[in-house]
Amino acid sequence: MAELAWNRYGKSSVRLVKVRRSADPHEIVDLTIDVSLEGAFDTVYTDGDNSACLATDTMKNTVYAFAKGDRIDHVETFASALAEYFSKKPGVSLARIQAAEHPWTRLGAHAFVADGQEEWTAAVTRTAGRTSIASGLRGLVVLKTTDSAFSGFPRDSYTTLPETRDRILATSITATWNYADGFGDFGKRSRVRSALLEAFATHKSESVQQTLYVMGAAALAACDGIVDIQLALPNRHHLLVDLAPFGLENPNEIFVATEQPYGLIEARITRT
Amino acid sequence: MAELAWNRYGKSSVRLVKVRRSADPHEIVDLTIDVSLEGAFDTVYTDGDNSACLATDTMKNTVYAFAKGDRIDHVETFASALAEYFSKKPGVSLARIQAAEHPWTRLGAHAFVADGQEEWTAAVTRTAGRTSIASGLRGLVVLKTTDSAFSGFPRDSYTTLPETRDRILATSITATWNYADGFGDFGKRSRVRSALLEAFATHKSESVQQTLYVMGAAALAACDGIVDIQLALPNRHHLLVDLAPFGLENPNEIFVATEQPYGLIEARITRT
Amino acid sequence: MAELAWNRYGKSSVRLVKVRRSADPHEIVDLTIDVSLEGAFDTVYTDGDNSACLATDTMKNTVYAFAKGDRIDHVETFASALAEYFSKKPGVSLARIQAAEHPWTRLGAHAFVADGQEEWTAAVTRTAGRTSIASGLRGLVVLKTTDSAFSGFPRDSYTTLPETRDRILATSITATWNYADGFGDFGKRSRVRSALLEAFATHKSESVQQTLYVMGAAALAACDGIVDIQLALPNRHHLLVDLAPFGLENPNEIFVATEQPYGLIEARITRT
Amino acid sequence: MAELAWNRYGKSSVRLVKVRRSADPHEIVDLTIDVSLEGAFDTVYTDGDNSACLATDTMKNTVYAFAKGDRIDHVETFASALAEYFSKKPGVSLARIQAAEHPWTRLGAHAFVADGQEEWTAAVTRTAGRTSIASGLRGLVVLKTTDSAFSGFPRDSYTTLPETRDRILATSITATWNYADGFGDFGKRSRVRSALLEAFATHKSESVQQTLYVMGAAALAACDGIVDIQLALPNRHHLLVDLAPFGLENPNEIFVATEQPYGLIEARITRT
Repeated sequence: MAELAWNRYGKSSVRLVKVRRSADPHEIVDLTIDVSLEGAFDTVYTDGDNSACLATDTMKNTVYAFAKGDRIDHVETFASALAEYFSKKPGVSLARIQAAEHPWTRLGAHAFVADGQEEWTAAVTRTAGRTSIASGLRGLVVLKTTDSAFSGFPRDSYTTLPETRDRILATSITATWNYADGFGDFGKRSRVRSALLEAFATHKSESVQQTLYVMGAAALAACDGIVDIQLALPNRHHLLVDLAPFGLENPNEIFVATEQPYGLIEARITRT
Repeated sequence: MAELAWNRYGKSSVRLVKVRRSADPHEIVDLTIDVSLEGAFDTVYTDGDNSACLATDTMKNTVYAFAKGDRIDHVETFASALAEYFSKKPGVSLARIQAAEHPWTRLGAHAFVADGQEEWTAAVTRTAGRTSIASGLRGLVVLKTTDSAFSGFPRDSYTTLPETRDRILATSITATWNYADGFGDFGKRSRVRSALLEAFATHKSESVQQTLYVMGAAALAACDGIVDIQLALPNRHHLLVDLAPFGLENPNEIFVATEQPYGLIEARITRT
Repeated sequence: MAELAWNRYGKSSVRLVKVRRSADPHEIVDLTIDVSLEGAFDTVYTDGDNSACLATDTMKNTVYAFAKGDRIDHVETFASALAEYFSKKPGVSLARIQAAEHPWTRLGAHAFVADGQEEWTAAVTRTAGRTSIASGLRGLVVLKTTDSAFSGFPRDSYTTLPETRDRILATSITATWNYADGFGDFGKRSRVRSALLEAFATHKSESVQQTLYVMGAAALAACDGIVDIQLALPNRHHLLVDLAPFGLENPNEIFVATEQPYGLIEARITRT
Repeated sequence: MAELAWNRYGKSSVRLVKVRRSADPHEIVDLTIDVSLEGAFDTVYTDGDNSACLATDTMKNTVYAFAKGDRIDHVETFASALAEYFSKKPGVSLARIQAAEHPWTRLGAHAFVADGQEEWTAAVTRTAGRTSIASGLRGLVVLKTTDSAFSGFPRDSYTTLPETRDRILATSITATWNYADGFGDFGKRSRVRSALLEAFATHKSESVQQTLYVMGAAALAACDGIVDIQLALPNRHHLLVDLAPFGLENPNEIFVATEQPYGLIEARITRT
């Protein structure tokens, strides 16, 4: 016969972004949290009796609700509060909170850049004795906590998205630009990078599309040797958590960072 | 001055699982879909004028709504219907639908196994002249379209999950089992695999926990040489899409497959 | 002051492919192996004294040398032999071998297909009232143990590759094909898949390029509705291990599977 | 009948690390390079005639040989030289070099830190009314170009590794440390990070093991509240390229960065 010797269960990969909007400028905390419990849950396994089985969905909700009331100055103290709370639930003998904090560096008043997987790219094509050179970058991850809107879009029978004048805008920049023939001062590529970042940080955005255009135009203005620039900006949606069921307001403070699906905006900007 | 030379936008990685419940036994289609549009969207970029900018969220909704009314016998015909629909939206000159279909193989009346990244694992430890041998498998991805419930769980102030008597249950099985000293018939590991799969396919599940226990017990029963088995079952949540805003019912047919967050259920089952 | 409380070291991700060439037809075993040791290695850490520190490079060599003399009928017995050998090295109190076996399914006399991440793809483009449909597949991983040569290539001052009349050929097939306007029998895509696999399995290859061409031609022959097919075949190099330093021959039996760098061969084949 | 409509081939993911040792302090360039050619290669595909097929292995060798003679001040000029060279090979109509540069930030005289995927981690466990708190970091990637040796290790019948007094040492640091009960100044975790980095950068290493111990001891010395620290240091091997076949010396300048296999060194250091 079979016997339950050990068990553990919980919720993993709860994505939480908190914006401290009362701070000036805004601050952000970006966490991935795992909750796991051990204890007297044997009959859940052996008898299908769920009366002691705190739903993992409830664990997730608890994380978001606690995030509203905690500044999360240190992830350790936030995790301790969660661990203490869960440890008092019926049957629990051990509660464990694991967290990974994804660091962001301030880029502007309300903008941040992630220490990510940024790479510089280059593509050189030689054909018929002519050399074409393009440079670029990818994996440059940025986020702004305000100055981003999306409204005035058409509504059809499949539209449910509410209009918003204030949302998080986050993306991973991929850019490629072509140099004029004979251009050779490739050290200037960091000026392109700076122009892209500054435009992202300071633009009051009506859409990712508009921000893309402003970024591309800024890059062209920053470096004479560039003839065009192509940008691809995935819209890494941050969804506002509905805290109303827990009697809490959520004035753009607590978000779920999502990976799928994502908007993808691409365009090429040239000199006139 | 800067000029918009080319643009494209859309929604990527829309995850769609359709269960054909009128079929007996059930059939499933598992797709990841990208929608992209080209056309007269210049003022979205240059002027921040969104009046022609069909929201990518609307594109996503459209995919799910169309999935309700289409059998999706072939992804090409489903994609063609979507492409035709989007191509008639104002300003669109080109509509493109890309799809990836993730194949499943039937495992039982309502159960399926994915042709995934399954690997056989082994761990041998030698210490003080004694050899301990464990075998296992990981990445064995399975799904059942019915015979899975989750109800009767406790409700506290953070609980919003509704009870359900019928949901999709999907997981990626990781299993490790220890052999008794001296056991040597390692070819029998496929009997363990079969026992795990059959238990998953036929069990009327009250929870992932209960299914885990039944699977572990079945593995122990199938192979005398095993002294215990440890299982880890991530709960790959499939969320029912709310089609009510589009005037459609969704009787457990159209789902979003999600990756984050996920439940994680682990236990070790021994012989008594 | 600091004290070493526990330590472990070893070699991870040793990639090993063994071809049992005495079998008819050939059989293969594909493993990723980790070796780790615990024991009296404190002075390696505290004093920089390496006299007891078996090099992890030596561990790797040992795995390959043992693989030559072992049929590896079961990974558990092979791992046990390694664990016993390493446990007798000076200072070792615990030797641990972990292995992951990547399963292959026989495709032909000397050809195999991996149960991988194969996906069906489709791309539908609608523009100016016309619908273009392409289908495809990706992640279809295949390998053949013989009937693959590469010789007669030009030698310049940077060429060191020896000619070979017998090597492993492995690739992950990505294919995309366009249908003639009005074609609608999309169920025939599995005939394209079969044609690609059969051509791969039976072709006596002079190069990946030649095999690609034969595969593309076979796909066009198998399905009238296809107007062209584009194939991308990364050459997943399997390098013959030099066992001579250990007094062993290696007649195309023991290989290292590598991921970087890889050849990449692409072409589009049309009907004449 | 089938016709070859278009073709391209080349070598992808050539990993190249160049150390400019004549610079004081050392500088590094870390690139992943793809080479691809188009041209009159039809008979390679259709007839199995390799007489015009420059081997992709030769392309790889060419990249490394060119890297010896080029300072690679800008990847664009290095790629241009390669593109020009390959464009003059028989049959080539188009040569394309794509490069991704992985940036490193100087950490010390001969040490660097990658702008990687560093994350802060925390794990809080609550059991029987007691809270245990651990903090950590992972994905902190560092490299030093000198002050790393590995010699004096035992040689058995499977040992082929030569002794070295000067090699590249690269790793991705994972660290976890436990706090004493009641410790609450979690802002001090950056002092642990600094101590780990400084020890890595300045230690004259006889082995990864010894460096690990010095790093752990430094972390304990830097923060009183820590009772122990566990470190895992994968040894990301950088292999010296043999340029002798091309008549070139390689005095620790040109390396291949490899991912598999890798050494893995783990230990826990406590206070005495």
